[in-house]
Amino acid sequence: MRTKTVCVSALMGLSLIAMAASPVVAQSKAKKVEQVRPDIKLAPEVEAAKLRDAALKSNEAYEFVSQLTTRFGARPAGSESERNSAVWAAEELKKMGFDTVRIDTFPLALWERGAEGLEITGPFAQKMVVTALGGSGATPPEGVTGEAAIFETYQDFTTSTADLRGKIVVILQPTVRTQTGVGYGVGSGSMRRQGPESAKARGAIGYVMRSLGTEDHRFAHTGATRFLGDEGLPALAISPPDAEQFERLLKLQREGKAGPLRLKLLSTPKFLGNGTSQNVVAEIKGRTRPSEIITIGGHLDSWDLGTGAIDDGAGVAITMAAAKVMIDNKMRPERTVRVVFWGSEEVSQPNDKGLSGAVAYAEKYAIAGSGETHIAAAESDFGADVVYSLNLPKASDETFKATLGNVLFPLNIYADRADSTGGGPDTGPLKTKGVPVFSLQQNGTDYFDVHHTVDDVLDRIDPKKMDQNVAAWAATVWMIANTSVTFAPNPK
Amino acid sequence: MRTKTVCVSALMGLSLIAMAASPVVAQSKAKKVEQVRPDIKLAPEVEAAKLRDAALKSNEAYEFVSQLTTRFGARPAGSESERNSAVWAAEELKKMGFDTVRIDTFPLALWERGAEGLEITGPFAQKMVVTALGGSGATPPEGVTGEAAIFETYQDFTTSTADLRGKIVVILQPTVRTQTGVGYGVGSGSMRRQGPESAKARGAIGYVMRSLGTEDHRFAHTGATRFLGDEGLPALAISPPDAEQFERLLKLQREGKAGPLRLKLLSTPKFLGNGTSQNVVAEIKGRTRPSEIITIGGHLDSWDLGTGAIDDGAGVAITMAAAKVMIDNKMRPERTVRVVFWGSEEVSQPNDKGLSGAVAYAEKYAIAGSGETHIAAAESDFGADVVYSLNLPKASDETFKATLGNVLFPLNIYADRADSTGGGPDTGPLKTKGVPVFSLQQNGTDYFDVHHTVDDVLDRIDPKKMDQNVAAWAATVWMIANTSVTFAPNPK
Repeated sequence: MRTKTVCVSALMGLSLIAMAASPVVAQSKAKKVEQVRPDIKLAPEVEAAKLRDAALKSNEAYEFVSQLTTRFGARPAGSESERNSAVWAAEELKKMGFDTVRIDTFPLALWERGAEGLEITGPFAQKMVVTALGGSGATPPEGVTGEAAIFETYQDFTTSTADLRGKIVVILQPTVRTQTGVGYGVGSGSMRRQGPESAKARGAIGYVMRSLGTEDHRFAHTGATRFLGDEGLPALAISPPDAEQFERLLKLQREGKAGPLRLKLLSTPKFLGNGTSQNVVAEIKGRTRPSEIITIGGHLDSWDLGTGAIDDGAGVAITMAAAKVMIDNKMRPERTVRVVFWGSEEVSQPNDKGLSGAVAYAEKYAIAGSGETHIAAAESDFGADVVYSLNLPKASDETFKATLGNVLFPLNIYADRADSTGGGPDTGPLKTKGVPVFSLQQNGTDYFDVHHTVDDVLDRIDPKKMDQNVAAWAATVWMIANTSVTFAPNPK
Repeated sequence: MRTKTVCVSALMGLSLIAMAASPVVAQSKAKKVEQVRPDIKLAPEVEAAKLRDAALKSNEAYEFVSQLTTRFGARPAGSESERNSAVWAAEELKKMGFDTVRIDTFPLALWERGAEGLEITGPFAQKMVVTALGGSGATPPEGVTGEAAIFETYQDFTTSTADLRGKIVVILQPTVRTQTGVGYGVGSGSMRRQGPESAKARGAIGYVMRSLGTEDHRFAHTGATRFLGDEGLPALAISPPDAEQFERLLKLQREGKAGPLRLKLLSTPKFLGNGTSQNVVAEIKGRTRPSEIITIGGHLDSWDLGTGAIDDGAGVAITMAAAKVMIDNKMRPERTVRVVFWGSEEVSQPNDKGLSGAVAYAEKYAIAGSGETHIAAAESDFGADVVYSLNLPKASDETFKATLGNVLFPLNIYADRADSTGGGPDTGPLKTKGVPVFSLQQNGTDYFDVHHTVDDVLDRIDPKKMDQNVAAWAATVWMIANTSVTFAPNPK
């Protein structure tokens, strides 16, 4: 009965529109579960399908991210705007009917962008579109000038023995467009995080890198570099077309038509000492097993350039809405569903400490002796495009993945055969404590067109795609919360 | 024979690729016309088709605009960069084999962008992506602050009797996407050119308008407003998503959830007095009727934000390449073909004088008693997308348009039934002297996504589309130059 019913739904609608218009599963059972009645026991996957179909019609996530970005704009970690948005979000979560809503504060070091610019002063003078890397160092107010030392890839830079003293390093390595976002990872750890420090060690006076962006429009992408305080090197990202300009100038140099390029680099960020950020933690208490916790969420902070619509207003909105659809349908889960809006995901911190909000959360809520157990955790932090795969850790019940996969298939989502290794950045500190994590992998093909730019605004979000995400999260979380499934601990 | 040959070509290839691969007309005649030999007289449309097919394979225009933008970047009117680009272009034109190349200088008033910014200081504080309008006035260095007076359309602003004293006017009228670009014209004359002056007359302290842009990305579009020197009002354009942010805040106000908005506006442009700009004028002397002139060209200056690739590096490159294909094929026209790279098209000037380069050109070259006659003129100044229609003024030979249209049809261009009224902005002063103008109308559907933004860079250009333009211009100019056609004078 259980499997059959879900299969009817799966067969009925391969497109989202067909699903939304044909909630047969929901219709056949919906009236009976308007109130949770322990005497009428429905299969979890039937209820999950009901939540899925309700979510597809909700528009709650889009409305939330619209309000968030409209009211608070950019929400840099530790800023007044981030704090105000947390207070507002907590109020909204209370109004929605979450059982408990808390704001947990934690300390962090503050970095603030200053004036910035880069120009080729000659030959072929030209101004560039730039943005300072988060946590990078400062030039004097008048900037620094030097000859460009240009490298086409990061490896060229690391293997070169060129004398970089007094020079400004320029690295032109592009970011490869991929569905999974793996092309971004290639550059974010090395070129962006380590590059400025390596360049400084070799005597460079500035660092310029091609943005970790896949588009060819004139947006510069910021992002964290290693936080070295006043010891840090001034470091900028240039827009992809500006990197292409350097490529063309390299060609002219090789043809003997241009000499060495002189650059003027300006960046005056400030280190403002310590401040605070905060996590917002909202719970739907489990009906029968409240000490078994499923943590989902996104991060409330954003970079200072855009309004953090896709990074990560979308993630907080999707996970919030997935829980809210349970509340709105008066379906209380057996385990506790906890929605966390982490603070301060984006910024680097002294001594390579980052993810301050995630660390604070894990240290408060995932501790031995608390009487609570984290069954699973996951963050939505990869934009607002559709989910296309489910990645679960190894489950105690071998049929669990297939059954959940069957609920997700009508959303055009497959259950991946591999065990999950992801979970999202803010689950990292939970993972190191052994908490199992899962992923609802979103299509990231276009994510790095916009990521960390001024263009990360509400216009980038398609409401229908948000609803598909919410449906996937609601169904997945419900299934985990209403079965006795457990997952293999994350290898510590 | 003449018509038949061209028809074969027209039937053969409706797509550009097919045309490029099947230059049958060219093959059948090409060897005979490698040198112009008056004893072998080919029909002009046969030769025009040969030039068309040669142009489709040339890539010259793209290479030229690539060099121009790479070497000189932005070329604001009166700047060193504009001047250097003119000197370089003149050298290049000489190398290409034009018979004469001159640089004609003329004076103009100089305006230079300063620091700029706009933020909503509260409620719902947020920074906006902005650009000052060219020729607009300045705030003090600390900016001005005031309450926003928001109007959804320009008409709302002009018909409102609201007290604007001490306020910052914000107008949110969008730009309608059209193939012809007419949606831009709706706002450029009123909202951008007149708006700041009208707002100042009513006591406003600043002026903010939604960019004349059709995209929903976070680019602000500059452009000229009336030049009032130190009497001008500070005036900014905001990006389309920022205008949508104002729309959402208006909605919150109407729902009673937001009070009046306070804005801080900063813009510190400078008026630098008088400088000079220049036109570059290159000629292929007519073989039999050298005093009969066909003037084509584009403008070499650009706004200061991008590198002026589509506005109007493309136009100078297309018209240059159209003439060059004649030189490269050793086909000297009977009438003189003059290619002009106008200076200073973009900027407004005191006392509503603008188009300084075009005025200087018309006053030097289109004067009674010079012994020269302008047969026709046209400017390419609408980007780098394909040409889709030919607009001619009323011709002395009634079959001329149909014959030329037949040569253009294989490029996916039709001859419009209406008489031309366009010609491009820099033909304006020629038109007032009665010179007939024609148009090769480009697809402008996406032009105002990029126009006057930092994103107007080489990446926006598709080389294949450039070649289609060059083919159309080469064929059209050849047909005018090698027949006895004349056109009705432009009504003065």
